[in-house]
Amino acid sequence: MGGTSCSYGTVEEGKVMKKLTIVKIGGEVLDNAEKLNVFLNDFSQIEGAKILVHGGGKLATQLANKVGVNTELIDGRRITDKDTLPIAVMVYAGLINKQVVAQLQSIGCDALGLSGADGRMIQTVKRSTAVLDYGFVGDCTSKSIYVSRLQQFLELGLCPVFSAITVDNRGQLLNTNADTIASCLAIALSFSYKVSLVYCFEHKGVLQDIENPNAVIPSIDHAKFELLKGMGIITKGMLPKIENARQAVEQGVSEVWIKSYKSLNQSEGTCIQ
Amino acid sequence: MGGTSCSYGTVEEGKVMKKLTIVKIGGEVLDNAEKLNVFLNDFSQIEGAKILVHGGGKLATQLANKVGVNTELIDGRRITDKDTLPIAVMVYAGLINKQVVAQLQSIGCDALGLSGADGRMIQTVKRSTAVLDYGFVGDCTSKSIYVSRLQQFLELGLCPVFSAITVDNRGQLLNTNADTIASCLAIALSFSYKVSLVYCFEHKGVLQDIENPNAVIPSIDHAKFELLKGMGIITKGMLPKIENARQAVEQGVSEVWIKSYKSLNQSEGTCIQ
Repeated sequence: MGGTSCSYGTVEEGKVMKKLTIVKIGGEVLDNAEKLNVFLNDFSQIEGAKILVHGGGKLATQLANKVGVNTELIDGRRITDKDTLPIAVMVYAGLINKQVVAQLQSIGCDALGLSGADGRMIQTVKRSTAVLDYGFVGDCTSKSIYVSRLQQFLELGLCPVFSAITVDNRGQLLNTNADTIASCLAIALSFSYKVSLVYCFEHKGVLQDIENPNAVIPSIDHAKFELLKGMGIITKGMLPKIENARQAVEQGVSEVWIKSYKSLNQSEGTCIQ
Repeated sequence: MGGTSCSYGTVEEGKVMKKLTIVKIGGEVLDNAEKLNVFLNDFSQIEGAKILVHGGGKLATQLANKVGVNTELIDGRRITDKDTLPIAVMVYAGLINKQVVAQLQSIGCDALGLSGADGRMIQTVKRSTAVLDYGFVGDCTSKSIYVSRLQQFLELGLCPVFSAITVDNRGQLLNTNADTIASCLAIALSFSYKVSLVYCFEHKGVLQDIENPNAVIPSIDHAKFELLKGMGIITKGMLPKIENARQAVEQGVSEVWIKSYKSLNQSEGTCIQ
């Protein structure tokens, strides 16, 4: 996964940890059957334990429009009200999750589709409405993850495929950010595995110049992140993605990459340090 | 579960088999939050290993109508065409499955939502179009069940909750009859467990007189089934349900009940022999 040049993190002395790769994909891959096909074939070939986390895509918005539910965005973030939640559950935990699982199974990857409710795998807390009411949105931390259960599934040779639907302790389903879920899974499992976390998107990596698709920044550490942020090179959706990635790095994940869904098994992309 | 008066089947000499209860619910329970609540509370209290299988309900039809998809019925059986399949997957494997799992988790039942695609748990074959094209419908047999994987989940203390979506060997999702799935699971697992199979519906059992809700037929064996069929007392949807139940009995399932969702843990209903 992306070579070893980006590898760091602490390995306890004398203890060889098994490798675990966690990959997150979003709408740009999920919305296109051909891209998804390329990605899933590459994903299925990753050796060792692996977990896939997927976000949503255009389907949920399309379905919401068809059934006359208005999806509200505030500051670019979706509000999940009582009418939007069932649509998110149907599309993310239902259609997308099962299509991805079925396709992986057909190419020999023993995928198991999961929401956070299944086996209480990811139990979150509904986001506070103090500043703004995001609705049925759950915030995930590494403590949200039911690590021992997840390890049991990995030991059985299963490949968990997570949709970004979680649950609170009262059985309320909650919409959750998929980037954050991937990061929380990586942190929680880094105590037991040597984890590589990979965020896949449409570009080759984080770009120095958005107009030049080849201007990939090979690595970003804390200082460089602050610099690029100050220069306005890292903006918008890339900011929380890198913040999630950095949090993973700081909390023991061995390597974190932001790279193209097309080059999953190649040494290119941006390594977050 | 339903007393022991309905118990039969062969137990291998000297081998004590663990108890497993498989319960199937349909639209009449799923469509009503209060009924579902009563049922799930009772279900969560069943001791020992258990599996829940759920059908659909009105939600799929309502969603199909909202998005302008015509659901076609031929001889009372739904045709699952390319536009209906995603709706079935979203509603059955998505919304209903995750809501049931979340609710069970909140009352202490360690539920794990599954479609047949997950862990390749139920792999079916698309129904032949020779007589009539039912579309994306899969036919399940007891050989469709990945028994050892299911046993691993049961051994972990998990309660599998199956939606009636299955998969073929090429990754095609297929709509499947939930009554048949319940029966196939029961047969496949009867080699390893002492299985009770329970079909829950709105009546107290199979009724001698549909006008009298208390006229429950306590037991139906092969001869009685033929008799009741001939008299026109067992008709329509009850015919395939009892046929599924009888198939289970004939293939080693310890006991099979048709009873009310309200009396899951009481000794009433119709015992199929």
